[in-house]
Amino acid sequence: MRCEVLAIGTELLLGQIVDTNSAWIGEQFAASGIDSYEHRVLGDNQSRIVAALQDMLSRSDSVLICGGLGPTQDDLTRDAIAELMGVELERDMELAETIAAMFRTRLRDMPQNNLRQADIPVGGAAIPNPMGTAPGLMCPVGDKPDSRKVIYAVPGVPYEMQEMVRAHVIPDLLRRSGEASVIVSRSLKTWGQSESGLAEMIAHRVDVQTNPTIAFLARGIEGLVVRITAKAATEAEARALVDAEEVELRAIIGHLVFGVDDETMEHAVLALLAKRGWTLGVAESVTGGLIGARIVSVPGASDSFRGTIGAYSTDVKRSVLGVTAESVVTEEAAREMAEGAQRVLGADVGISVTGVAGPAEQDGVAVGTVFFGVALPGRPTESVSFRLPGDRERIRQFSTISLLSLVRQRLEAFDA
Amino acid sequence: MRCEVLAIGTELLLGQIVDTNSAWIGEQFAASGIDSYEHRVLGDNQSRIVAALQDMLSRSDSVLICGGLGPTQDDLTRDAIAELMGVELERDMELAETIAAMFRTRLRDMPQNNLRQADIPVGGAAIPNPMGTAPGLMCPVGDKPDSRKVIYAVPGVPYEMQEMVRAHVIPDLLRRSGEASVIVSRSLKTWGQSESGLAEMIAHRVDVQTNPTIAFLARGIEGLVVRITAKAATEAEARALVDAEEVELRAIIGHLVFGVDDETMEHAVLALLAKRGWTLGVAESVTGGLIGARIVSVPGASDSFRGTIGAYSTDVKRSVLGVTAESVVTEEAAREMAEGAQRVLGADVGISVTGVAGPAEQDGVAVGTVFFGVALPGRPTESVSFRLPGDRERIRQFSTISLLSLVRQRLEAFDA
Repeated sequence: MRCEVLAIGTELLLGQIVDTNSAWIGEQFAASGIDSYEHRVLGDNQSRIVAALQDMLSRSDSVLICGGLGPTQDDLTRDAIAELMGVELERDMELAETIAAMFRTRLRDMPQNNLRQADIPVGGAAIPNPMGTAPGLMCPVGDKPDSRKVIYAVPGVPYEMQEMVRAHVIPDLLRRSGEASVIVSRSLKTWGQSESGLAEMIAHRVDVQTNPTIAFLARGIEGLVVRITAKAATEAEARALVDAEEVELRAIIGHLVFGVDDETMEHAVLALLAKRGWTLGVAESVTGGLIGARIVSVPGASDSFRGTIGAYSTDVKRSVLGVTAESVVTEEAAREMAEGAQRVLGADVGISVTGVAGPAEQDGVAVGTVFFGVALPGRPTESVSFRLPGDRERIRQFSTISLLSLVRQRLEAFDA
Repeated sequence: MRCEVLAIGTELLLGQIVDTNSAWIGEQFAASGIDSYEHRVLGDNQSRIVAALQDMLSRSDSVLICGGLGPTQDDLTRDAIAELMGVELERDMELAETIAAMFRTRLRDMPQNNLRQADIPVGGAAIPNPMGTAPGLMCPVGDKPDSRKVIYAVPGVPYEMQEMVRAHVIPDLLRRSGEASVIVSRSLKTWGQSESGLAEMIAHRVDVQTNPTIAFLARGIEGLVVRITAKAATEAEARALVDAEEVELRAIIGHLVFGVDDETMEHAVLALLAKRGWTLGVAESVTGGLIGARIVSVPGASDSFRGTIGAYSTDVKRSVLGVTAESVVTEEAAREMAEGAQRVLGADVGISVTGVAGPAEQDGVAVGTVFFGVALPGRPTESVSFRLPGDRERIRQFSTISLLSLVRQRLEAFDA
């Protein structure tokens, strides 16, 4: 099964918005075994949209259009599909009533234009949009049933688009492909090993597998994802295949896995803290508050997170955190900062980072050198140093994820 | 002049990387008066690349290809262009020597494959790449001089691509278009006014202008950019046109402008602090360290920035910052936090934010309510509250930019 992706919007061509939808769709398609040979972006121009649809459907089974379903005259996706199908648009009165009702419950007047969103090309069907006013479209193209192709259209708003692609477009594509219709994927998120290193460790699993399949996805400084994808007749069967492979993989790379699917490194740290009923305090210099900011992005962080001291100036490291080390970019300073965070923030666990993000070296310490401190209850405070590559921003981001990874490992190993 | 954009890479189709290059190119083209009707993404497949080039050149003057210029067998851009031109690839020995020398200075062995990057389609020319090993290509297509079209190719690595597009591709396109060959743009960055409000304020300037032109670019919570673009025979003339229009626009919207071109809100705040020789301390609750993190992203922030106290738990607000207010989500608490930041961090200016980011309300205060505090030397501490829309992440981001904007305004107005 192949489905090309067509994003519509002059603002995309002008670079006012980056098209992240096509990449998201590409990833979902790949996970579901749906091929895509081409992503295209066009402006709000009906004849060019129609020509592109003809061209794409001449080579492919289906096209998914993103965008151009709004209520204004610039929104031409409905008209372009009707033109290609050689049919009229017909207003779906039930849909129109749903749209009007949505405006009423939000106590807002509905511009008449919004009813255009209830117009459907004759022969097509609406895809419900539980999160917005613009319904999607699912439109067959061609007269002969055995050579019939299909155009899907969804809004460009990412969360509306994602819900509709997941719930309607992919299941419909899989149904049409006639393949085993249930796909289950699970992502094991790893940190601390290179792609080639990881590939070597699990090469014998990747080689013998056809169902489930195993794929690597690079996530930059956030690590590498190992994704297990299984197809089966039922969800329970597909899930069982994934479960079995996860056990095999974890036996080899389990120590590198910090989370599954949407879990982040900060989720992992907070979960380990919660398990022991411990609280966390942070002292951060180069990162200036970034570590705290990542931790509070997790809902419920307040159960374990006390706060962060962004001690950027040397004075503040001394006056607030009690650092006495002669140079504040040393392992000793990192240890004192971690203990300072523990004490000042009243936390069970204190962690810290200090270092040189550049542009110039400091106290004879080279740009990219960072020192981490970890203070755990009843243990001597530890310090570790790293030399990180990249520019100022990259050093800060890398310091953040590295320190979170370090404290995760120490919490995991606390009793061992 | 019209130039379409073709990004090459199977990893883009699979969504492993988001194609941000095409949007960047689209924005640069728009600023230079170069149209683009289509952006396309294809995988590493020579016949599909050739077919797409044929299709795009049948309608357009030129195509810019991004990616597929690396040293491996997957990198097919050179071969595809040669196939389309109906010519062979020829190794440019001077270029080959440059590539070999680059490896020698980095003390790394050069895989023989890397010399493929010195292969040029006969009739084409290399575009120098000052930042990497892969040169770009500039290749004329067609025999008749008056109907000649052109294909440009640049690497997919963003900073290499950007440098080459700015220095070679756009100047060459403008030369071919025969139009006034120098374009100067300036972006006035505004915050605090809606797009329609801003458009109304400067409508009479937009209407009368043809050169320079005035465009709006939305930047989400970072505000709105008003971009002035002038064309002229020389850079000095174009710059003079932009300067004159900037004066006119600033007379109307000057109070909303916080920066020019790459300047951010945190740049503006730090510059105002530096002018007075003042230091800044931050106390942040909902944002958890995000405000500090944004400030330290500016090189040289250490001259004015003392640090941030990410006081997430109520205990820390009281013990570290000395908050006595009964509820920590009140205007009084925000004032006490700002003064606490001033005192504890030894800063001239203290700013703070506290509030409710959700998911649930706190002390009877609704989700999205935030309180800002600003403590300036010798002035009574001020508190302002806002009700922000959106989810947890959006409330945090919006709080950060709103507080930075508020302190910028107060510093600007300090003597007034």
